[in-house]
Amino acid sequence: MNEIRIGLLGLGTVGAGVVKILDTHGAEMQERTDCRLTLAAIADADLVREREGIDLARLHLVPDARQVLDDPSIQIVIELIGGLEPARTFILRALAAGKHVVTANKALLAHHGAELFEQARRHRVMLGFEAAVAGGIPLLRAVREGLPANRIASVFGIVNGTCNYILSKMTDERLDFSVVLKEAQARGYAEADPALDIEGMDSAHKLQILAMVAFRTSLDLKDIYTEGITGVAHEDVVNAAELGYRIKLLAIAKASDGGLEARVHPTMIPAQSPLAAVSGVYNAVFISGDNVGNLMFYGRGAGQLPTASAVWSDALEIARRVAHGIPALPVELPSVAKAPLPLRPMDEIRSAYYLRVMALDRPGVLAQVAGILGRHDISLVSVLQKARAEGEAVPVVMLTHDARERDMRAALAAIDRLPVVASRTTMIRVEPA
Amino acid sequence: MNEIRIGLLGLGTVGAGVVKILDTHGAEMQERTDCRLTLAAIADADLVREREGIDLARLHLVPDARQVLDDPSIQIVIELIGGLEPARTFILRALAAGKHVVTANKALLAHHGAELFEQARRHRVMLGFEAAVAGGIPLLRAVREGLPANRIASVFGIVNGTCNYILSKMTDERLDFSVVLKEAQARGYAEADPALDIEGMDSAHKLQILAMVAFRTSLDLKDIYTEGITGVAHEDVVNAAELGYRIKLLAIAKASDGGLEARVHPTMIPAQSPLAAVSGVYNAVFISGDNVGNLMFYGRGAGQLPTASAVWSDALEIARRVAHGIPALPVELPSVAKAPLPLRPMDEIRSAYYLRVMALDRPGVLAQVAGILGRHDISLVSVLQKARAEGEAVPVVMLTHDARERDMRAALAAIDRLPVVASRTTMIRVEPA
Repeated sequence: MNEIRIGLLGLGTVGAGVVKILDTHGAEMQERTDCRLTLAAIADADLVREREGIDLARLHLVPDARQVLDDPSIQIVIELIGGLEPARTFILRALAAGKHVVTANKALLAHHGAELFEQARRHRVMLGFEAAVAGGIPLLRAVREGLPANRIASVFGIVNGTCNYILSKMTDERLDFSVVLKEAQARGYAEADPALDIEGMDSAHKLQILAMVAFRTSLDLKDIYTEGITGVAHEDVVNAAELGYRIKLLAIAKASDGGLEARVHPTMIPAQSPLAAVSGVYNAVFISGDNVGNLMFYGRGAGQLPTASAVWSDALEIARRVAHGIPALPVELPSVAKAPLPLRPMDEIRSAYYLRVMALDRPGVLAQVAGILGRHDISLVSVLQKARAEGEAVPVVMLTHDARERDMRAALAAIDRLPVVASRTTMIRVEPA
Repeated sequence: MNEIRIGLLGLGTVGAGVVKILDTHGAEMQERTDCRLTLAAIADADLVREREGIDLARLHLVPDARQVLDDPSIQIVIELIGGLEPARTFILRALAAGKHVVTANKALLAHHGAELFEQARRHRVMLGFEAAVAGGIPLLRAVREGLPANRIASVFGIVNGTCNYILSKMTDERLDFSVVLKEAQARGYAEADPALDIEGMDSAHKLQILAMVAFRTSLDLKDIYTEGITGVAHEDVVNAAELGYRIKLLAIAKASDGGLEARVHPTMIPAQSPLAAVSGVYNAVFISGDNVGNLMFYGRGAGQLPTASAVWSDALEIARRVAHGIPALPVELPSVAKAPLPLRPMDEIRSAYYLRVMALDRPGVLAQVAGILGRHDISLVSVLQKARAEGEAVPVVMLTHDARERDMRAALAAIDRLPVVASRTTMIRVEPA
């Protein structure tokens, strides 16, 4: 039985999970790959801190990543440092040295994926990244290998557990965003610095990777319209529920009108949608292919062992191939189609919208607002004025039919200039999902 | 660019789908595999019947499968004849001739999988069967390649669209089984001879394949307890709804108490379960792994293009490898673990139960029934007597706590011997899913 030597960069939460799984499942994993798996070296800046469930004394710990990267006996490098640098440099060096790489680093792939894949192609090595999107769900594998006979029409879903936990809690317990965020931080569901999650960037990173694989395109992160959940008010969560909707942070990529739209934003979806029922730290992704129809994948989008499970799925596939002398094929790495879909600017997308206009309760105000919408080609499905307080600002809630984003923005600017409108109008996109 | 020559056995519904997809998606598929894909020959007994959407004149049709099997230029054989023979013999011959095989034939794999995999292993060729379970959902690939670092705790779900359509319709429209079956046949959702579906055998076939992959065991089809939906009465569907449940035909494989239980039967699941919302011809499968947690896969379980999409996912993977000189690895074929879980006989499983006892409406009857259950170690969650008609038989509906199947059967036999019990008691298992 051949030995495959693996080096690990980063012994944080997921890194410790990778070690644990080899401890507990090593025998079966060796049976499945028909090779002996050795964690030859683990590099981390902190070699002292205890890791729960792991006996550090048994591991070959090194303080410097170079001791992994320069070890010619190591065939596979697992990168779990996170962040852009030094992770990028380390991976480029590992690939250049002919080592195969597995990473869970979504930010890095979203920013520098093209460079990394090109490097892997040049050096004829494999680069696995299943763990970078949707945690333990074998989603990228399903899209890449399970749907090659489809043109993908859309990919959308809930890919950030922190935001989903916060929005679920705001909905179920009618709590304010800031209260729930503090609680989520206390329970470890949100980072001390939660910006990457709640501003939507983490979802945008994952959407970039997912869209690249599904649509075989190279999408620039800055071209993904990204809006987080910090602006979702308690009031809008309540209004959504009353109207038969839920608010979720969705990552959406759709082929439409010969182009590709890619966006991350709070979205109102019907309460009976399967996505509405996805609560807490779970992820769920819908994929629609022209031959296969609608598919849905659901599971834990983060966490130590689910993510480490995905890391090992890549590492074991590579180990099996290396142990049996099977070379890496450039064609197996993500590539851009001969004629990729051009990106559609956000201004051109069409959507239905929820509006909450804070308007003075005076005769004729609704006519003014509706008049502006009409002049911008936007028609209303329903209007709901929730309270009456003559002369004071009250919320007027509106649902529109599909309209063009550019028209909606122009209409909103005009509405917010009306003297009877007291504060900035809240707008949330509505998907029929 | 290397050419890969493919032979097709069987130009039925799915076979025609395979041809159509090559027509419509061939260019992208060749880009993804970096090889030229040719449908070199298609064998079918009926070369005259029109196939919608296909120009037969453009195809190389042959009347005899031997013209595919004996053609040394053909590298991959796609078997879509269905049934046990001659499909088994054809596949064995193709494998012996060094050809790779892709099949959607669940009955054949469930009966003769071990023999076919052994043949493929011996001749060092690949045998793809993604399309055999859950149609277009890339489920087997996800389990085999996405979860190798997990011990699977359970696999269960809805894997037969015909039964699911019938039960959904019985529930939503309060119709009788026989009425819905006729309608399903008229709409093409049920076969003229629906026995394989409605008796649960099709689900058992799929469960056998899924359990083999998930638990790395060899399960004999006859050891899977199989009960179809023909005994589900309109009345039980209504009672289930009143109690907050839905009735679904579930295929269930669970590791418990050091053994494996495998069973197919109508099952009451809570109305709020995600499986309860799976309606019509859709399939959904839950998988629980010890590291990854709960996963759910949802999509079309049958149909021409979804199934052909799954066939092509296998054929393209094989084509890519053959075109680039990558050999088949015996370790990639399904195999039995060194210490597979022993099968637990149905008598030993534990479940909650729904009972509908048709008992004469007389004082003391309930005490007699409850007494029998108690003596067999079965306790009740709730009892519901739906009507009163002194001296006549009325339904008494009971939900039990978890009990052993053997005890339940013994109790049922005793209950049905009571003089006050007018007809055979209906029993449906309840899962918390």
